[in-house]
Amino acid sequence: MAGIRDVAKLAHVSTSTVSLVLNKSGYVSDKTREKVEAAMQELNYIPNELARNLYHSKTNIVGLILPDIAHPFFGSFAKYAEMELYKEGYKTMLCSTVHEENGEKEYIDMLNRQMMDGIIMGTHSLDIEDYNRVVRPIVSLDRYINESIPIVMSDHEKGGTLAAEELLRCGCKKVLQIMGSRNVNTPAHLHHYAFEKKLLEAGVTVCTEEAPWNRWSFDEFYSFVQKIYSAYPDIDAVYGSDLIAVAYLKEARMQGRQIPEELKIIAYDGTDVTRMGAVTITSVYQDVQQLAREAVKLLIERIKGIENPDDRRILDVCLRKGETT
Amino acid sequence: MAGIRDVAKLAHVSTSTVSLVLNKSGYVSDKTREKVEAAMQELNYIPNELARNLYHSKTNIVGLILPDIAHPFFGSFAKYAEMELYKEGYKTMLCSTVHEENGEKEYIDMLNRQMMDGIIMGTHSLDIEDYNRVVRPIVSLDRYINESIPIVMSDHEKGGTLAAEELLRCGCKKVLQIMGSRNVNTPAHLHHYAFEKKLLEAGVTVCTEEAPWNRWSFDEFYSFVQKIYSAYPDIDAVYGSDLIAVAYLKEARMQGRQIPEELKIIAYDGTDVTRMGAVTITSVYQDVQQLAREAVKLLIERIKGIENPDDRRILDVCLRKGETT
Repeated sequence: MAGIRDVAKLAHVSTSTVSLVLNKSGYVSDKTREKVEAAMQELNYIPNELARNLYHSKTNIVGLILPDIAHPFFGSFAKYAEMELYKEGYKTMLCSTVHEENGEKEYIDMLNRQMMDGIIMGTHSLDIEDYNRVVRPIVSLDRYINESIPIVMSDHEKGGTLAAEELLRCGCKKVLQIMGSRNVNTPAHLHHYAFEKKLLEAGVTVCTEEAPWNRWSFDEFYSFVQKIYSAYPDIDAVYGSDLIAVAYLKEARMQGRQIPEELKIIAYDGTDVTRMGAVTITSVYQDVQQLAREAVKLLIERIKGIENPDDRRILDVCLRKGETT
Repeated sequence: MAGIRDVAKLAHVSTSTVSLVLNKSGYVSDKTREKVEAAMQELNYIPNELARNLYHSKTNIVGLILPDIAHPFFGSFAKYAEMELYKEGYKTMLCSTVHEENGEKEYIDMLNRQMMDGIIMGTHSLDIEDYNRVVRPIVSLDRYINESIPIVMSDHEKGGTLAAEELLRCGCKKVLQIMGSRNVNTPAHLHHYAFEKKLLEAGVTVCTEEAPWNRWSFDEFYSFVQKIYSAYPDIDAVYGSDLIAVAYLKEARMQGRQIPEELKIIAYDGTDVTRMGAVTITSVYQDVQQLAREAVKLLIERIKGIENPDDRRILDVCLRKGETT
């Protein structure tokens, strides 16, 4: 490839003049500028390293597609993923899919056109078929896509079982679980299924509500909880993701319910928000830093062409006892 | 620039064969692959659009440098900035500076080498001199850098004054304010200065603590609050950023203080975390979505070469009454 020296030579100027033109800084006469630009054109000069990387089909850019980075779980995941990618020499390009016109499809196109080296995909919005055409490196966080795309997830079955066991220990008889939209094919639902199974086996009544699809802010969760609250006057426990649990705790206390005497609450994820209140919420804790680490590790292996048949990582979870059970 | 057709022609293969080689998909014999690669070399073929953009000194990538995107304020800012940039046809590259070896300097280098079109800089870590050498588009969130770098910020003086007025209305006499490290030259300190000034004028005692530098997680703020709590047994109000306020509220309630009767609390930022607890915290609210919108708007103007002398945006703030005053 042509370098800055070649451009300078052809344009009969110094390399520092070429730099001035490139950086649009300092004074360069129009005539000199034109000469330099003409030389660049002629030599097909590409002014930077990223281009050289592209030439070798390597951008050192990884796309991170997440629903909403202002959400505590995805925000932490993005933080740690960026950190791990940075250590490995990759830059993180962020794509949030909470807004209507989101860039998910465009990111997949960019990956296919080699404008990124790989994607970590933790979103819940795109049709799975769109991913089936992709032959380049993708790792999924908590989403089944197809056989060839590795997945990183927590041991959700264990998580749901731990939550159920805690509520059984507390003697709960009628439980409300609030889950994400079942239209989304995510193994994150597994913890709800395991939770329900365990409780039903023990003769506990389990009611289920589905939170609205692709809505992630506290205000949206809180509105949802306010809407359904009065429909469940006689439940003795609630189980749902962190923000759902936080919202339910807030509403229950405003309605004068004694926590945990009259109502137990267990959160799933165990991010900071479960510990921020005066009352710490009992939670099933996912190790989000380790999830990010494993996702990055798997992706980099794929980028380097290493594929293992057991490209699936299932990480351990634990119950963190708070004051709501 | 050479296109895929030129490569195909020179290598005496079809364009679809070139595609196969480029995408590393499907079967291509070693011999054919070598021929195609040789033709690409000879023609200096760059296999994608990003490269073509680079050729025109345009990457459509904007760097977003923030301390910690798992922090509620910066997480929301990143969310809205990505959204606005996406609408304008830009991809967001994320750089978090909370970790020790952070990419801030590297990002500035990437900007200088035209690997990004611009940067929105909301971090508190790099030496300001490093920015003085930059001639390409940067917009700063809440940080004074130099005359040529526009800044987007809230009306912090008004914010601090509103908080002080609220505490005066409540009859407070001895107030603790907890601010960020004064080593960082950020106008965000202005709200503390205005707050202190207003209270001192009214004869109120103001104690000041500085939170540790570049530490942003709830656990770190909570440890800090636990450490200083016993040093201020007789204060009647606390003022600090959201997570500080949340942490102080938690600790005060655990210590049996009646809120707001014995202790008033005002948070600065007013993100979701101030509304999540059973007790909603009174806060000075910054419109983070509007801050992101203005930062993106200013940056894009700069990228397009539009520079106005009044390239500074100061957005309005308001007091949101909660249950802690």
